[in-house]
Amino acid sequence: MSHLKVLKSLVGKEFSQSPSPFMRWLNPTLLAVEKGNLIFQYRVRPEWLNPVGGLHGGVTAGIIDDAIGATMYSLDETDYFFTTINNAIDYFSSARSGETVIAETSVIKQGKQFMNAQCNLWNWDRSRLLAKGSSNLFKTEIRTTLGAEGSIAKQKQLILT
Amino acid sequence: MSHLKVLKSLVGKEFSQSPSPFMRWLNPTLLAVEKGNLIFQYRVRPEWLNPVGGLHGGVTAGIIDDAIGATMYSLDETDYFFTTINNAIDYFSSARSGETVIAETSVIKQGKQFMNAQCNLWNWDRSRLLAKGSSNLFKTEIRTTLGAEGSIAKQKQLILT
Amino acid sequence: MSHLKVLKSLVGKEFSQSPSPFMRWLNPTLLAVEKGNLIFQYRVRPEWLNPVGGLHGGVTAGIIDDAIGATMYSLDETDYFFTTINNAIDYFSSARSGETVIAETSVIKQGKQFMNAQCNLWNWDRSRLLAKGSSNLFKTEIRTTLGAEGSIAKQKQLILT
Amino acid sequence: MSHLKVLKSLVGKEFSQSPSPFMRWLNPTLLAVEKGNLIFQYRVRPEWLNPVGGLHGGVTAGIIDDAIGATMYSLDETDYFFTTINNAIDYFSSARSGETVIAETSVIKQGKQFMNAQCNLWNWDRSRLLAKGSSNLFKTEIRTTLGAEGSIAKQKQLILT
Repeated sequence: MSHLKVLKSLVGKEFSQSPSPFMRWLNPTLLAVEKGNLIFQYRVRPEWLNPVGGLHGGVTAGIIDDAIGATMYSLDETDYFFTTINNAIDYFSSARSGETVIAETSVIKQGKQFMNAQCNLWNWDRSRLLAKGSSNLFKTEIRTTLGAEGSIAKQKQLILT
Repeated sequence: MSHLKVLKSLVGKEFSQSPSPFMRWLNPTLLAVEKGNLIFQYRVRPEWLNPVGGLHGGVTAGIIDDAIGATMYSLDETDYFFTTINNAIDYFSSARSGETVIAETSVIKQGKQFMNAQCNLWNWDRSRLLAKGSSNLFKTEIRTTLGAEGSIAKQKQLILT
Repeated sequence: MSHLKVLKSLVGKEFSQSPSPFMRWLNPTLLAVEKGNLIFQYRVRPEWLNPVGGLHGGVTAGIIDDAIGATMYSLDETDYFFTTINNAIDYFSSARSGETVIAETSVIKQGKQFMNAQCNLWNWDRSRLLAKGSSNLFKTEIRTTLGAEGSIAKQKQLILT
Repeated sequence: MSHLKVLKSLVGKEFSQSPSPFMRWLNPTLLAVEKGNLIFQYRVRPEWLNPVGGLHGGVTAGIIDDAIGATMYSLDETDYFFTTINNAIDYFSSARSGETVIAETSVIKQGKQFMNAQCNLWNWDRSRLLAKGSSNLFKTEIRTTLGAEGSIAKQKQLILT
């Protein structure tokens, strides 16, 4: 089954079975998926906060990085890994404990080797933009199956070092 | 007691008492602190990983954001909050479960209202640079005490919205 | 006359009368303007090139920075300057000498003090994205008139230093 | 002669013979060069300004992009081109017409395929940091000679598209 089909089969479900431990910790629910566009929903949990109950910028960055990485699978480049080169995040607002936030990704440029994708993080009804991030990614030559996203780490040793 | 003195009193200790829930989750040990420069040590935990045991880029981003935020307190601008405007992260390599990683921060530009700081994330002996991040921050007019770092979230509503 | 009206009166014209010397050097033609959205057209000139006739990334960056700055005027915050805090540029493709390129700007977040805007640089028919840039800007308290954009420099001394 | 030797032979000279038209327009004087570190000096010219005589942020970006690109040659990877993936620039201060500014570059990470380099732009005596930029670059497989830097443009078609 293609990566895109797998992702579509997960719409409406939590990613509690993701092979990525950090993605399981973020525990998103996939709301929608098309080729190059994913929408995830997250519930802001107490351990995601700073002392006044605001969503910590570090968790915001984690959500954006993870959502962009997952978006690569929707492109059905099923045989190859994408490794993240950089992520530029702008912060606009925050969210409270228990609040639902929405991450919406899009692929800006799809090249033979290089990809550029971005992610907007919204409040629950997308009336307030909390942050946005933009990443460049590189398609490696290592084959994988959905969820072996982590090989990105191996990639960094093999390719970026 | 000044923020810098408080931080110096925490050298060698885990930040298990931080008023920031996410910082407690990252649970860094402060190795050294000078005005504008902090060095934190972290142990890579299983929930920080991607499927092949590499440190997830989202956690790397979280560490960098949190360490830069903490560095603002070492400047002894005791009465004011700094809110993060942006964070630009470049990824170079990864780390394994159980590995120790070191975050080293520095203030690049200290203005009246705007600050620029960066963070390098290293492997345990600083022989391999895993990632670097650079942030612009804005000094708000809200007073706080050490650890009320979270008011940054409130700031985002008051000032960035 | 409001800034937006002034800009609309310039549609179809070269910015040969801009009070900004560097903008005059870039010499864009304004194709369209709405509140928060500008479209400029440029002709790639020989001095913009690298040795093989490609548009130099430094000129691409200059175009993006200048177009975003001009977009602030379309917001009709007629009394205040916006100073650029940062600009994150991603490069995707290039252009040749004599080629027409199109810069299209949009405001992503309009806050009381902080703005976020981006610019896409396209080839002539917008079939190929050459580069994109994203900037955070800060609204200063200095009043100006259209074209006194340069006071941004003064701002940097007064506010960012 | 190695690229590094060529660069060292140019210390103290203007780059008026650069095969890069835009570098000739910037017309830097090379003050010093070591492997991975270049120092260029520029004189701020009237066409580089905004209306109040401040160095235009777009020219600042152009200087940073050009200086980082030139730094790749000092690594003596004589056979291959480096193409710029992104450039993240932070603005701190400005400069006046006729003022001398100094660009100082350094290579942060040298990988097999990927490089990370940064550039600090200073006032004449390096007492005031005007801006800094950080770029990721990719080593292509196209061979060149010093100055054929422009092939980066060709690369973008071949590799990033």
